[in-house]
Amino acid sequence: MKPVRIGICGLGTVASGTVNILTRNCAEITGRAGCDVIIEHIGARRDNPLCDTTGYKVSRDIFAVVDDPNVDVVVELIGGYDVAKDLVLKAIANGKHVVTANKALIAVHGNEIFAAAKAQGVSVCYEAAVAGGIPIIKAVREGLAANRVEWLAGIINGTGNFILTEMRDKGRAFDDVLKEAQALGYAEADPTFDVEGIDAAHKLAILASIAFGIPLQFDKAYTEGIAEVSTVDVEFAEELGYRIKHLGIARRQGAGVELRVHPTLIPEKSLIANVHGVMNAVMVQGDAVGTTLYYGAGAGAEPTASAVVADLVDLARGLDGDAEHRVAALGFHADKLNDLPIVDAEQFESAYYLRMSAEDKPGVLSAVAQIISEEGISVEALIQREPLHGESCVPMIILTNRTQEARMTAALIKLKQLDSVSDEIVRIRVDALDA
Amino acid sequence: MKPVRIGICGLGTVASGTVNILTRNCAEITGRAGCDVIIEHIGARRDNPLCDTTGYKVSRDIFAVVDDPNVDVVVELIGGYDVAKDLVLKAIANGKHVVTANKALIAVHGNEIFAAAKAQGVSVCYEAAVAGGIPIIKAVREGLAANRVEWLAGIINGTGNFILTEMRDKGRAFDDVLKEAQALGYAEADPTFDVEGIDAAHKLAILASIAFGIPLQFDKAYTEGIAEVSTVDVEFAEELGYRIKHLGIARRQGAGVELRVHPTLIPEKSLIANVHGVMNAVMVQGDAVGTTLYYGAGAGAEPTASAVVADLVDLARGLDGDAEHRVAALGFHADKLNDLPIVDAEQFESAYYLRMSAEDKPGVLSAVAQIISEEGISVEALIQREPLHGESCVPMIILTNRTQEARMTAALIKLKQLDSVSDEIVRIRVDALDA
Repeated sequence: MKPVRIGICGLGTVASGTVNILTRNCAEITGRAGCDVIIEHIGARRDNPLCDTTGYKVSRDIFAVVDDPNVDVVVELIGGYDVAKDLVLKAIANGKHVVTANKALIAVHGNEIFAAAKAQGVSVCYEAAVAGGIPIIKAVREGLAANRVEWLAGIINGTGNFILTEMRDKGRAFDDVLKEAQALGYAEADPTFDVEGIDAAHKLAILASIAFGIPLQFDKAYTEGIAEVSTVDVEFAEELGYRIKHLGIARRQGAGVELRVHPTLIPEKSLIANVHGVMNAVMVQGDAVGTTLYYGAGAGAEPTASAVVADLVDLARGLDGDAEHRVAALGFHADKLNDLPIVDAEQFESAYYLRMSAEDKPGVLSAVAQIISEEGISVEALIQREPLHGESCVPMIILTNRTQEARMTAALIKLKQLDSVSDEIVRIRVDALDA
Repeated sequence: MKPVRIGICGLGTVASGTVNILTRNCAEITGRAGCDVIIEHIGARRDNPLCDTTGYKVSRDIFAVVDDPNVDVVVELIGGYDVAKDLVLKAIANGKHVVTANKALIAVHGNEIFAAAKAQGVSVCYEAAVAGGIPIIKAVREGLAANRVEWLAGIINGTGNFILTEMRDKGRAFDDVLKEAQALGYAEADPTFDVEGIDAAHKLAILASIAFGIPLQFDKAYTEGIAEVSTVDVEFAEELGYRIKHLGIARRQGAGVELRVHPTLIPEKSLIANVHGVMNAVMVQGDAVGTTLYYGAGAGAEPTASAVVADLVDLARGLDGDAEHRVAALGFHADKLNDLPIVDAEQFESAYYLRMSAEDKPGVLSAVAQIISEEGISVEALIQREPLHGESCVPMIILTNRTQEARMTAALIKLKQLDSVSDEIVRIRVDALDA
């Protein structure tokens, strides 16, 4: 059978993993694909000592790959937005299939890219864009195709999970662990995307689209990072039977979809609470299948390249197939996407963990309780410490039942007005992930 | 686009779930498949109050479905070996695709069935045959297609896991929990397949084939059930930091594959040790992706039907595709299957948990230790209790390092010959599932 000839653009970490897997596991891949998957052309500004490109055609101009008539599939691994977008659109215009690991590109420009691909009758595959080697795109688009997805929640940024794991296991402070993560190569020199939750929001926007059949709407995701999570909160959460994880959550709510990335207290017995270090996991709740969970390495050269190569094998298995019948880019066919609106953050529903500093005197607790109760919020648990010698303020921790975010916002405004309570109140959402 | 017309054979639990999902989630399924998936014909000896078949063509002769020229895909949900095999082969001969949830059928007759399907250019899909709603067949055949799979290990029998979970959580005895499982409908009236590990071995044989690219070899699987697991061992395992789970394990070893189903001590911190009740989970270790884990409901009407319908959507997406290019039945194309032999049980490698009753007198421990050492086995941990008042024998628990099963067998023969040690020695394999 005719081989599938691929062109690789970029020769960074994931690309080196891709070259190495295609070389090492050649027999497995051919056995599964039914034909050879061969590297026809590599475009990279410089070599990478992590992989051997001897014998391959290498161009310094990545666009030479896209224009190579011998290339059937372009593998975009340069990252970033603008050049990557030009490259992918050029590849599509040239009638080539595309495989990419670029979550930012798909989350931000995916709708345009998929439309262009559909018009040309080619596929754009992006399994590697979410949760690295975990085949989560395939699981949701194909494996759970029978289901009306009710919600999904994922630890989809390994750097953030590494930091929170270290904070919990070793009582270390955020800044300290971040520096180590950077030294270990888990976090970028500029850690903004990881720490502020932007990377997780990119991935969540993609997951939500394929789960609910809605267009990509990264710009509407509510995003909080982990920089504000303190060791104190990690410890109080533990005392209450919870762990703090940085989750991306997408959930049907009424006639809309919640799209949110934020630190979340989850019950310590939950399987996903036991996902540690740089590992990723995604839970998906379908109306037929119930809860399923997918776990694995969310980053790294070969785990991510594992997903890139899986996409190549998929393409090899269906290259001659009828474009009309292929798995649609967003799981649902373009004319069947629906217009569920993304819910405004004030309409979110959640339970809450609150930590405030309160004066240790009679009446404070009842004043706090009254404000919370007036907003129709009920208290699930409360921790109040005896003051240490000489201290006039004590930490007060409140765990509420589920309520609407707008009510909590209103309660927080009133609580901050209390003279006996500090102006700063820590608020972290709580999710049992059980329904 | 032309609808896909299915014929359902059998109207038991999974079939009722399939009918209900196809009805309820019609819009989702059409949106994903790109065409309607409609029930054309149902063959069942009797109705099922769990689903409404009003308006559907129903025949009391299931073979009428297979011979119906309007049926594109036959969904075999009658279970069992013989009639199911005839039905599926007839469907294939009639040029119809087949979807089945029948693990026994695939494990035992799969090689013959897949060969017939290949000759006819039709597909036989069996996602529902392993781990219910978890898309594990898809994950291994497609999602991990880049990998040389090193091993996989799964909790793939919900009944067994329910029993072991109850034994651990509540200190209940095996027989007691089994009766409850039967009352709850988790276990069959004849629980042999669940309790003796045959059901798990069916599923393991399937998983091993698609992971390693070998023909189905259910008859070569080493199989131990859970009936011999006692509460005492569950408790000692706990004390040593382990949980006992009934695992199916397939692992490359030298130039062969270990294929084994047995109770296994696994470290309590391992994610899979925290899979409770009737839930299933499968860990897969690939050389590129590292460890991944897939978790969800392994049985039940709608979870299993979720997988049946996913197969239908897959077929709908590729019905007009070229048969040569489809995902091969066993992941690897038939001419690329390899002949890795299944390793004999005496060649297995494992660590071991041993529990024996030993006389409480000097020299016993050293005699035991000497025998173990003579076989080249080293001891990882040991628990010896003080005798209760009036008892002359005490339990002695030994955890060994990894060794070859043949050495352990030899050591056990010698240990049983010791006058100071009971003739019955409990031996449970230990697996850290970490490499």
